[in-house]
Amino acid sequence: MTSPDEQPTLAVSTVIFTLQPNDSATPELRIPLVKRIRNPFANQWALPGGPLAASEDLADSASRTLRETTGLEPRYLEQLYAFGDPARSPGERVVSIVYWALVAGDEAAQVFDSENVAWFRADDLPQLAFDHNLIVDYALWRLRTKLEYSRIAHGFLGDTFTLAALREVYEVILQRPIDAGNFRRTMEASGVIVPTGERLTGTRHRPPQLYRYNAEPESQGEFDLGPRSRPMLTVKETA
Amino acid sequence: MTSPDEQPTLAVSTVIFTLQPNDSATPELRIPLVKRIRNPFANQWALPGGPLAASEDLADSASRTLRETTGLEPRYLEQLYAFGDPARSPGERVVSIVYWALVAGDEAAQVFDSENVAWFRADDLPQLAFDHNLIVDYALWRLRTKLEYSRIAHGFLGDTFTLAALREVYEVILQRPIDAGNFRRTMEASGVIVPTGERLTGTRHRPPQLYRYNAEPESQGEFDLGPRSRPMLTVKETA
Repeated sequence: MTSPDEQPTLAVSTVIFTLQPNDSATPELRIPLVKRIRNPFANQWALPGGPLAASEDLADSASRTLRETTGLEPRYLEQLYAFGDPARSPGERVVSIVYWALVAGDEAAQVFDSENVAWFRADDLPQLAFDHNLIVDYALWRLRTKLEYSRIAHGFLGDTFTLAALREVYEVILQRPIDAGNFRRTMEASGVIVPTGERLTGTRHRPPQLYRYNAEPESQGEFDLGPRSRPMLTVKETA
Repeated sequence: MTSPDEQPTLAVSTVIFTLQPNDSATPELRIPLVKRIRNPFANQWALPGGPLAASEDLADSASRTLRETTGLEPRYLEQLYAFGDPARSPGERVVSIVYWALVAGDEAAQVFDSENVAWFRADDLPQLAFDHNLIVDYALWRLRTKLEYSRIAHGFLGDTFTLAALREVYEVILQRPIDAGNFRRTMEASGVIVPTGERLTGTRHRPPQLYRYNAEPESQGEFDLGPRSRPMLTVKETA
């Protein structure tokens, strides 16, 4: 038993993924990190987060962190895991309940780095504070796994998108090239995306079709969203 | 921010599944519950658990609870979810990190009900304390989902088992009959179970073959075990 003054501190942190173009306009999977201003791990980068407020729900705390760090609302938010190794925080027992979130690339592109917040490539991080490298690795694994059997890619895109943009999300996250023809056939056969009837505006001779996700989240199948009575899925549905 | 004296209390609880024969020897999926002796919810049944000890890992706390409640070691143990609704515990903020576990039926059958611990059918529970009905429902859903794409059934069985016993696990948990021939073909083709070369001892003319799970847990595929560096899987491997 823990005596009251030995109660572990409870924190909520969030791994926030987005796709942002690099200098050559290729999207990269990135996460925002916050530079710590005090010990332990002063001046090291860490996941955004903090103590749980007294009357705040866990998911609300994760959303607040995301908003305060990036100015954005999550397109997708899900509980990842509770990390409680007694040695993960020197000098104090901290149990961190971690969420992972997706924000749309076009929204995230408008958010600039500040002195204490910067976006890093998810697969090329410095040594982070606490066990945060382990946490990001696990979140990356969860993201890649879910991409293959769910409509999670939606969280990176606007309400409408081209097949090429959708395929690019898969290629960047899974880190392998995907055949365009196979991808088109698989996606169209799945019924998960539907053509909007509109085309990308621009200067091209034959602009590509725009698609949207259909509005039946149940068709995503056996997709673990957390306890059913309070789904953590906050993907915005198109009209 | 939470001031130090408003820190939420952190608890670890465990949903412990087993298969136990009922009066007609048909296995039923059951969980042990503990009768609460103090408020809130005095005299109501609740999941076993308690405060996190100061230097105890989360999974170790769940194992300890399981041992103290049932006298058993888990065959399988996995983090389920952190439940933190501010209204879930009257008068005090409690965040519960919940694990789910499997114990083998033959071991659990030796554990008798005591005054304050009883085994209940998982799909026919009374009104439990806190949000524990919601928690059990979610654990049931996770169990059923994992049964279909992993070797989780192992956790209910001894080291060796007949195909009929394995199929019975699937039938009881999924609550539907499964064709014996199809099941045999699917299981044998999967390579996940292998014949031991031995047969069930007993009085039958042609006793059925015994199988065991093969010893390559990696072959279970994209099976979310928690962070990779510290798998929560504690299934005992056969020699």
